[in-house]
Amino acid sequence: MPRILVVPVGSTPDVAPLHALADVEVRGPEDAGLPDALARADGLVAWDGVHPALERAWALADPRRLRWVHTSSAGPDRLLFPALRAHPCVLTCSRGVLDTDIAEYVLAGVLAVLKDLPGTVRRQTEHRWEHRTTRSLAGTRALVVGAGSIGTRVGQVFAALGVAVDGVVRTPRPATAPFGGLFGPGDLARVAGDYDHLLVTAPLSEATRGLVDHRVVDALRPGAVVVNVGRGPVVDEDALLRALRAGRLGGVVLDVWTREPLPAGSPWWDEPGAVVSPHLAGDAAGFRERLEALLHEQVRRFVTRAELLHVVDKEHGYAITPTVSA
Amino acid sequence: MPRILVVPVGSTPDVAPLHALADVEVRGPEDAGLPDALARADGLVAWDGVHPALERAWALADPRRLRWVHTSSAGPDRLLFPALRAHPCVLTCSRGVLDTDIAEYVLAGVLAVLKDLPGTVRRQTEHRWEHRTTRSLAGTRALVVGAGSIGTRVGQVFAALGVAVDGVVRTPRPATAPFGGLFGPGDLARVAGDYDHLLVTAPLSEATRGLVDHRVVDALRPGAVVVNVGRGPVVDEDALLRALRAGRLGGVVLDVWTREPLPAGSPWWDEPGAVVSPHLAGDAAGFRERLEALLHEQVRRFVTRAELLHVVDKEHGYAITPTVSA
Repeated sequence: MPRILVVPVGSTPDVAPLHALADVEVRGPEDAGLPDALARADGLVAWDGVHPALERAWALADPRRLRWVHTSSAGPDRLLFPALRAHPCVLTCSRGVLDTDIAEYVLAGVLAVLKDLPGTVRRQTEHRWEHRTTRSLAGTRALVVGAGSIGTRVGQVFAALGVAVDGVVRTPRPATAPFGGLFGPGDLARVAGDYDHLLVTAPLSEATRGLVDHRVVDALRPGAVVVNVGRGPVVDEDALLRALRAGRLGGVVLDVWTREPLPAGSPWWDEPGAVVSPHLAGDAAGFRERLEALLHEQVRRFVTRAELLHVVDKEHGYAITPTVSA
Repeated sequence: MPRILVVPVGSTPDVAPLHALADVEVRGPEDAGLPDALARADGLVAWDGVHPALERAWALADPRRLRWVHTSSAGPDRLLFPALRAHPCVLTCSRGVLDTDIAEYVLAGVLAVLKDLPGTVRRQTEHRWEHRTTRSLAGTRALVVGAGSIGTRVGQVFAALGVAVDGVVRTPRPATAPFGGLFGPGDLARVAGDYDHLLVTAPLSEATRGLVDHRVVDALRPGAVVVNVGRGPVVDEDALLRALRAGRLGGVVLDVWTREPLPAGSPWWDEPGAVVSPHLAGDAAGFRERLEALLHEQVRRFVTRAELLHVVDKEHGYAITPTVSA
């Protein structure tokens, strides 16, 4: 039986159903035996986070037997350290599992800003009844940065509510629904001002790091809403904070951050125009079970040498499987 | 030219475009000349609220010339005092103008509860990063109480996001989209437990006052979300507060109240499971202009003796015009 090494960080998956298929070993990332376990593993599963110790164990292990690495994350960025990228193993991720919940979260965030729910919650604590004029979602325009599995679902949700949706993709191609148009990363600063909402779903890669930079932020139209559920370093947080404080944005909802957890001393916590959330957009009740179901299916495929799902393009940093239709 | 009397409360409409059509007079509800103005008016417009003084002026005026009364509200309940109900005048309301914004607000409220945005805002004030599991909207079931113009739009919005939507109407009829089923008011307590969300959009009438009573509230399933954007007295607020405090509900979003403004001493302000908002669900930027455009169209129709829009059934308390499709 092939040997599968599971390295849990935040939580541990249920591996009981796997024992009939493989020789499964579970070891924490700082376990002294991790390098040895890695050296003899055929498959590696990084679960609920990737600990920096994994890269160190990898260097010690020289995992020549390893043919497959899987992550419970939708974005594989934290596994793409140089040694793993250079290794011939196939890398797979948990693409698709969280799409609808993340899209709902993006919608919740934009609607919260347009309807000023944070302002309502704050006035409530002061027992203050104060009528305000809100903003409409229908009839607005959204630009989704990263039109992959998550971005496409975000686009579908907004389009269903009467929003005109365009997207930004690595390589522009003719647009299909829900996107009216697709632009390349180089167009972003030029077109950003045409939208009411900038919705960042992009994975982190060399191409997307800092993609939403100060030029893009400065090009946004007054009152624009910015949401990031992709990866923190895709957005220049400092430029965003400056624009927000200057009153140039309608509101910002950030669920992912350059540093997670967001340090207690971060200026973002006290920013009334921002919703600061702790990387939970996709984590709706049952998400662990759905991630486990995918893991079990992947192990079954690995053991039976069937095609693995959601294979990551290590150069570009995301799964290359065609977009699953809704 | 016919005489049109405009009685503004919260704000005053732009009547300049009407001077070519009618002899327009604007008087505050407590203006000493109101009864005389009402006695000679052919049409009456109650704008941005109905003041109790209007009913007193009506009694003094004995407005025999009056043929038409219009309100800027979607729900005409506050105009349905006995003397106006008994009067032969045609009553029209501003049905339809606010539908999409109200539907977006209901969605914003349900998503805020499911994604715990109020909890995120509160933790943010404490600089507290605390991951939680959220809840999915797709795949849930919603019951819309009041399947008229607003309720239908609410149903469409939720159905577009993968929610199964049923409705409660005065007289049950075969359901059409977005509703899977339509029940009568007498079924409400029996079926309420089958839904994840109870969305109240009903107008206030003798039939709907107290419709969502303690039996309905007690029948709700654990974790249910309740939103009221109809009229406060449709819901038994005390029963709802008891259920919320007992931990039997997921969250409550109330935008309308039995007493508005909500008194500063109300226990609702300090209830963390509730979002307390100040009757603003439909009031998105431009709403006054849209209400004015409808007023101008109605005056044009009244003066040219064309058919008036959104004629209210005074017995049942809402407009009887067929539902406008999306």
